Amino acid sequence: MDLKSLEQLLSDVKSDRLEISEALKQLENLPFSDLGFAKIDNHREIRVGYPEVIYGEGKTVEHVTKIVSHMCERGDNVLVTRCSEEMAKGVLEVCPEAHYNSHGRTISVVNTEQESSEDYIAIVAAGTSDLPVVEEAYETAKILGNKVVKVTDVGVAGIHRLFANLEVIRGAKVVIVAAGMEGALASVLGGLVNKPIIAVPTSVGYGANFGGLAALLSMLNSCASGVSVVNIDNGFGAAYNASMINKL
Amino acid sequence: MDLKSLEQLLSDVKSDRLEISEALKQLENLPFSDLGFAKIDNHREIRVGYPEVIYGEGKTVEHVTKIVSHMCERGDNVLVTRCSEEMAKGVLEVCPEAHYNSHGRTISVVNTEQESSEDYIAIVAAGTSDLPVVEEAYETAKILGNKVVKVTDVGVAGIHRLFANLEVIRGAKVVIVAAGMEGALASVLGGLVNKPIIAVPTSVGYGANFGGLAALLSMLNSCASGVSVVNIDNGFGAAYNASMINKL
Amino acid sequence: MDLKSLEQLLSDVKSDRLEISEALKQLENLPFSDLGFAKIDNHREIRVGYPEVIYGEGKTVEHVTKIVSHMCERGDNVLVTRCSEEMAKGVLEVCPEAHYNSHGRTISVVNTEQESSEDYIAIVAAGTSDLPVVEEAYETAKILGNKVVKVTDVGVAGIHRLFANLEVIRGAKVVIVAAGMEGALASVLGGLVNKPIIAVPTSVGYGANFGGLAALLSMLNSCASGVSVVNIDNGFGAAYNASMINKL
Amino acid sequence: MDLKSLEQLLSDVKSDRLEISEALKQLENLPFSDLGFAKIDNHREIRVGYPEVIYGEGKTVEHVTKIVSHMCERGDNVLVTRCSEEMAKGVLEVCPEAHYNSHGRTISVVNTEQESSEDYIAIVAAGTSDLPVVEEAYETAKILGNKVVKVTDVGVAGIHRLFANLEVIRGAKVVIVAAGMEGALASVLGGLVNKPIIAVPTSVGYGANFGGLAALLSMLNSCASGVSVVNIDNGFGAAYNASMINKL
Amino acid sequence: MDLKSLEQLLSDVKSDRLEISEALKQLENLPFSDLGFAKIDNHREIRVGYPEVIYGEGKTVEHVTKIVSHMCERGDNVLVTRCSEEMAKGVLEVCPEAHYNSHGRTISVVNTEQESSEDYIAIVAAGTSDLPVVEEAYETAKILGNKVVKVTDVGVAGIHRLFANLEVIRGAKVVIVAAGMEGALASVLGGLVNKPIIAVPTSVGYGANFGGLAALLSMLNSCASGVSVVNIDNGFGAAYNASMINKL
Amino acid sequence: MDLKSLEQLLSDVKSDRLEISEALKQLENLPFSDLGFAKIDNHREIRVGYPEVIYGEGKTVEHVTKIVSHMCERGDNVLVTRCSEEMAKGVLEVCPEAHYNSHGRTISVVNTEQESSEDYIAIVAAGTSDLPVVEEAYETAKILGNKVVKVTDVGVAGIHRLFANLEVIRGAKVVIVAAGMEGALASVLGGLVNKPIIAVPTSVGYGANFGGLAALLSMLNSCASGVSVVNIDNGFGAAYNASMINKL
Amino acid sequence: MDLKSLEQLLSDVKSDRLEISEALKQLENLPFSDLGFAKIDNHREIRVGYPEVIYGEGKTVEHVTKIVSHMCERGDNVLVTRCSEEMAKGVLEVCPEAHYNSHGRTISVVNTEQESSEDYIAIVAAGTSDLPVVEEAYETAKILGNKVVKVTDVGVAGIHRLFANLEVIRGAKVVIVAAGMEGALASVLGGLVNKPIIAVPTSVGYGANFGGLAALLSMLNSCASGVSVVNIDNGFGAAYNASMINKL
Amino acid sequence: MDLKSLEQLLSDVKSDRLEISEALKQLENLPFSDLGFAKIDNHREIRVGYPEVIYGEGKTVEHVTKIVSHMCERGDNVLVTRCSEEMAKGVLEVCPEAHYNSHGRTISVVNTEQESSEDYIAIVAAGTSDLPVVEEAYETAKILGNKVVKVTDVGVAGIHRLFANLEVIRGAKVVIVAAGMEGALASVLGGLVNKPIIAVPTSVGYGANFGGLAALLSMLNSCASGVSVVNIDNGFGAAYNASMINKL
Repeated sequence: MDLKSLEQLLSDVKSDRLEISEALKQLENLPFSDLGFAKIDNHREIRVGYPEVIYGEGKTVEHVTKIVSHMCERGDNVLVTRCSEEMAKGVLEVCPEAHYNSHGRTISVVNTEQESSEDYIAIVAAGTSDLPVVEEAYETAKILGNKVVKVTDVGVAGIHRLFANLEVIRGAKVVIVAAGMEGALASVLGGLVNKPIIAVPTSVGYGANFGGLAALLSMLNSCASGVSVVNIDNGFGAAYNASMINKL
Repeated sequence: MDLKSLEQLLSDVKSDRLEISEALKQLENLPFSDLGFAKIDNHREIRVGYPEVIYGEGKTVEHVTKIVSHMCERGDNVLVTRCSEEMAKGVLEVCPEAHYNSHGRTISVVNTEQESSEDYIAIVAAGTSDLPVVEEAYETAKILGNKVVKVTDVGVAGIHRLFANLEVIRGAKVVIVAAGMEGALASVLGGLVNKPIIAVPTSVGYGANFGGLAALLSMLNSCASGVSVVNIDNGFGAAYNASMINKL
Repeated sequence: MDLKSLEQLLSDVKSDRLEISEALKQLENLPFSDLGFAKIDNHREIRVGYPEVIYGEGKTVEHVTKIVSHMCERGDNVLVTRCSEEMAKGVLEVCPEAHYNSHGRTISVVNTEQESSEDYIAIVAAGTSDLPVVEEAYETAKILGNKVVKVTDVGVAGIHRLFANLEVIRGAKVVIVAAGMEGALASVLGGLVNKPIIAVPTSVGYGANFGGLAALLSMLNSCASGVSVVNIDNGFGAAYNASMINKL
Repeated sequence: MDLKSLEQLLSDVKSDRLEISEALKQLENLPFSDLGFAKIDNHREIRVGYPEVIYGEGKTVEHVTKIVSHMCERGDNVLVTRCSEEMAKGVLEVCPEAHYNSHGRTISVVNTEQESSEDYIAIVAAGTSDLPVVEEAYETAKILGNKVVKVTDVGVAGIHRLFANLEVIRGAKVVIVAAGMEGALASVLGGLVNKPIIAVPTSVGYGANFGGLAALLSMLNSCASGVSVVNIDNGFGAAYNASMINKL
Repeated sequence: MDLKSLEQLLSDVKSDRLEISEALKQLENLPFSDLGFAKIDNHREIRVGYPEVIYGEGKTVEHVTKIVSHMCERGDNVLVTRCSEEMAKGVLEVCPEAHYNSHGRTISVVNTEQESSEDYIAIVAAGTSDLPVVEEAYETAKILGNKVVKVTDVGVAGIHRLFANLEVIRGAKVVIVAAGMEGALASVLGGLVNKPIIAVPTSVGYGANFGGLAALLSMLNSCASGVSVVNIDNGFGAAYNASMINKL
Repeated sequence: MDLKSLEQLLSDVKSDRLEISEALKQLENLPFSDLGFAKIDNHREIRVGYPEVIYGEGKTVEHVTKIVSHMCERGDNVLVTRCSEEMAKGVLEVCPEAHYNSHGRTISVVNTEQESSEDYIAIVAAGTSDLPVVEEAYETAKILGNKVVKVTDVGVAGIHRLFANLEVIRGAKVVIVAAGMEGALASVLGGLVNKPIIAVPTSVGYGANFGGLAALLSMLNSCASGVSVVNIDNGFGAAYNASMINKL
Repeated sequence: MDLKSLEQLLSDVKSDRLEISEALKQLENLPFSDLGFAKIDNHREIRVGYPEVIYGEGKTVEHVTKIVSHMCERGDNVLVTRCSEEMAKGVLEVCPEAHYNSHGRTISVVNTEQESSEDYIAIVAAGTSDLPVVEEAYETAKILGNKVVKVTDVGVAGIHRLFANLEVIRGAKVVIVAAGMEGALASVLGGLVNKPIIAVPTSVGYGANFGGLAALLSMLNSCASGVSVVNIDNGFGAAYNASMINKL
Repeated sequence: MDLKSLEQLLSDVKSDRLEISEALKQLENLPFSDLGFAKIDNHREIRVGYPEVIYGEGKTVEHVTKIVSHMCERGDNVLVTRCSEEMAKGVLEVCPEAHYNSHGRTISVVNTEQESSEDYIAIVAAGTSDLPVVEEAYETAKILGNKVVKVTDVGVAGIHRLFANLEVIRGAKVVIVAAGMEGALASVLGGLVNKPIIAVPTSVGYGANFGGLAALLSMLNSCASGVSVVNIDNGFGAAYNASMINKL
């Protein structure tokens, strides 16, 4: 029920077209979402070109394929994350223009081109093993309509590689750092770059890495200010955050 | 050594005012920081009004008092975090214009007024026990030159209190959420607000809270996108991040 | 030995049909369970229609099939939980009327219809990935003779979905909440519903979810009163609890 | 805004006492909570005799004293949990009829007598060290208007003590079990009693008890059905749950 | 009710001195423990000289003093563990013959001398910091009527000290090993001594010792067979176990 | 070098059959183990019928088969633990008289009959899922020459089953308790049986069981005295311990 | 740009062969690494015979094969760690002189013989299951140009085996100790050997070993001085460290 | 018993001054330590100037004072670690020449000057809060006779400070790195310095630092080779290790 219908209702009461008791009932039963949550829905409105994001893990190929087909018909942009090779095949059959990023395990379909500003997101990664997280973040940021620059294999064990790429990182509006093992790259960048840094601990490593816990704790305890952290291997979440910031 | 001195050096070599061997030595011994790290220092340059931040914990009253005095003489803005009452007394003696926030355990001295834009940071907190973190974040954000709005005691156990304040939260450019116990407020806000959210787990709670671990894991695993996390009780870090974003 | 036989024994002693020494022996050797644990057994008595529950995990198909056959012959109701597809096939061969719920990994056989009151259990779940837990709880609650309403995919990331379903949840006598990731749904419902809530953390999530630990700690630390918790993914346990309460 | 004022508003519109535009404004600006959350508030409505609960930890004596005074003036029932001796003294000064339970660290004031049914809650505890949790649960359950029976010091190390008290436990409508160390009492009772059991792990123990973690994990993994768990040492939460169930 | 009273009852029934209905009532109400748990109580019967053990932690001085007085009057042996200095003073006032072991934090009173066989328990400890555990174990083993030999400060960092004492250790019937830090002594002894070894991890150490966790895990994972483990710092439990074995 | 050869050496020196310098050399080069560790070896001496124990996990079939063959040729008793089906096949080919226990994953070969006393070990287990641990313990205890009684499926969820078997458990000289989930059986038995109890936590369970951690912590924190603990699923270790005690 | 080119540049300026503006540009654009990090690169310079190390895990066979081919063409020494059998086959096809150590999961190619001093590294291991770590360390130490002595299967359960090998261990310049389970060998050796000890916890064990955590904590808490620790199963890291020390 | 006495024994046998049976007895009872552990003791022999190290924590002032007095009388060098102010006062009274380092909580007495080579140990620390660990390491390294250079406050948040000090760090023979929070400094130095690095995680930090766990895991997972780790806050252990290496 929008303001207009509300006005109509009051008008009907006034002009005796509607009994007070009936109007009362309509207002009393006013569905919660109609008034209160119109605002809530605003933030989920499908802006042009914005994708629906499908988390592929645990879903069947059939299920995902069907969703994607349906969305493409509506002209939506689509992003599937944690997408297995088998799932990708299924989607590509019904939607051949879909783009499969096997490293990032994502499928994306751009049905509506997004404009993007000159502001860009830098995705910085410590090692080649962090690639899946980098690519997931990359595809997410791209389909959300951002310019993205990737700087990979610049871990602190060979810190000169990082310095050689510092300018492009400093030029970004927001920086994503993906690192496994001890995750020191986030702290080092935090000391070198005056931009918001979103750190993604990756599960790369072994032994006392405990599935990314070492990097996670390391990043949360960063001695450099300006670093915030998302879940282990959560490239999507990092990019979603970064996109929000990049578009401010 | 800046470009100008470098030019002078080359000029001196050319005009035989300087021996090649001597020039070589100067270049060879070129202090690392002078050339390479000029850029690095840029990002730490003392912009007008920016405070130096002193982490009070583990420092002596004398030590902190001395630093603050020195900085005030230079006209710097000052922020001391994790500042005990005793430490605050010491600082106030030498610097009576200092502002002590006992809840937030901060001392701040504004020697140079900061201009701030209309963009503001919303600091949202679940319960009254999260106050110390809220106040630390508040003082940090203020002295960094931001407009700040505080919305407290809006935890999910009485979610209508949150809804009643949703408009002011949605109006912010970036949102800090401080919550202890199960930290659910971050996820709920993540689903309601389309702005970057920086979540601070607080150590409020008992039993299986494990000093803030419950809220920390909860926030890292937020089902809502757009939430990134800083260390437990790290109000300063959250505000530093938020300030970076608010000023973009 | 029940009271009646005890009376008979005393009567026999009185009327000299039984020697004191012999009576003494019978009483002395009175099997523990007969007197003391008759009461204990009461709570395990097979009430009409009550199922025997078989935990399928780690059992062989042959073993389970045999138990089910035997129970069906006796006219018992049967519930097998954590039942693999292969196990289900085996059971269906010998007991074609069995009902296999592949999502919930349960097999159930209703040999005796249960009456159920109008009181119902609401099973509320955050996401579609929590389905296995929901279905295990559903099948358990059903065969224990309860009316059940399922409300799924109402996680806090889109809280308006929850509000749209609040009435049916509030109408339940007891509520089961299944949620993975950060498990915030339990706290939010705890603040909205004045009924006992049994929370089931699910192992849905990744990274710092640590196999359901995040949701578990979150639920144990719920800031809302009225929430108690069962083991991770323990849909059966939640429904067993809820059934006890629903039948009060 | 309740139904009555809503009716008045409509009536005023009808009778031209109120302009539509003005009515619209009132409705449009209708504070969220007034309409939408009337339902929500329902569950928090102050039923006769229901207490407000104040969590004392971290609050100042002055703060708590003031709240209690205010509530007593309104004739509310009051419960303060985690109440230190000093805080109790402060409250007793302004409210001499308050009842301080030093073991349970609670202050309660009954301004309105509650009726309670014959149904009762049994609070069962393993050892004398679990007393603080027992007493917190006891005071909570009492002021919420329940009959309560306490059965303490019946830990499994001397299981005959438990059996000697089994009848009174079985007679309860719902059972609270408080146990520290290995928390085995919850499982044993779960096998003996056919009532919902709410288990409270206590932090009693040392070494590898890890502040109640051992009992917590033990209770979550109970081999007996019908056991749900609340946070470590959370006697209040257990009693709040039990009260909800006892009043069904 | 023992067999004799049971016989009397039957006899009374037979001779019409007791109505069947009355006899039935007596039998029906037969307290659980009387018949069924006579056996259970057997194992807790106070054998001559056996102490009652009082865990002092968390108890008040008055409480403990009163228990000890009462027991001494009955001529029981007494052991108080985790006994603070203040508590010891209180006990010594009312029971001057009590023996206070300040290192082991125990009070013991021997009212009835115990005979002990030639079999002895060896208590072996890694460092002088393990002394409190050693002494608690020593006093426990002594009052339970065992010969005890202490071998301390023989940690593996100077393994020759251990070898110099090997004969006396090997002569024991059962060995208690108390060690903190990495707890390696248990494994080394397990490889050298063909007797049951009860290992007590102590909380001695710092940093990644995590309150005894390092030693605990170490001992549980001992590569040597014949090592079983009790809780961290649980000298009493180790000695109780050892006493059981020593008396076989 | 045993005492006899040592005597011969001295005799040879005395009778001039051996030069002092040569004797000195023999003594000086006396391999460490020969003299110093004769005692050490004592405890590893192959007593008649004692088995060598081979931990099968991680070893190849060929490797194990070869060791077993070799030992059988020498007439040793053999025990292989953690023996896969494939490994068992390999061993049975070369040693058809070997006994494979598929539940316990053990192979045993008795080449020399052991005498055993009337003292026996009771192996008590909570559920049928604990069978692998029970059987590993059983086979270990048997080949070490012990009488063993198994009492399984007596978990505390149906405690009357335990009581029905209490006499045979109490008759044992030492008791092994295997239990997963919350491991409460160890504590309950500890309160009922006055014999040393060796508790084996099993990894049976799910969710917050964390691979046996719940049962492990539970058993370490047992409120009953007389319980010591071995590693998770370590049936062999429990039986080795029990055998040591049973033979005292 | 090395000193020589720098000198040339200056010389060219002096002799007017190069314009100042052009020289300035060259210096200004001087890539970061060229001047500043020449020193950094020094420590990574390919000294004769030094291998490039490739961490095989997560890399494709094709990728690794290509790198190895390329390096062999340049005459570099090569070490691939965590090399699967399949990967080894691929490498051996293109580089038949490569040496595959299947236990250590390493491939090494020596294209340039290394001289090594008489100083040697001792690699000591507790059990045969630690072999993979031993072999990884061995191959790493060898290709880095060290003499290595292996002493395996000398765990503390049979400590005489260790003593029999003590001389050769004491003769080493640095000692690597690999041990799983409780890792006690590191502490024992630390008390017997006056050389730097690098301890490698291995993931050998089960149950409460928690994937090497028990050994890791044990080694970090070693009561013996002189023990430092690397990551679980990190044979490569241990050997790299040891090589650095051995070459001092 | 040394070789000489052994020769005498044989000679006595030969010349009939000693009965074979008596000689046999002497050899049989040959104390373990005399022959076998002479070597062991070698490594603990008090080399000139080497200190005895006393771990002060948990010791009484009287106890420590007495040990120090005694050692000073013998002319030994002394080091007391974890020495409280009160303990220091006690020692200074009896030994005024003792040197108390209040930051490092050490007391040292140099009674015999040590010669030290030109090789030095660099102690590098991230922040001023790491000072206690730095000073403990410093005093330990000094009294063990090493040249030491301290480089503090060079954490990665301001990495240019580290680079400015790189030459002196690279000049060391072995490097100690102390860092709390996320401990990234160890990895960064590991990539910059080609010397063995001993990393000491410090407990500096808060929240998810968990008492140094974050830095510990970070350092164990260092992506740079050449880093080994000692226990949290173990400055003594790091310096002891470093001293061993520095003297090679």
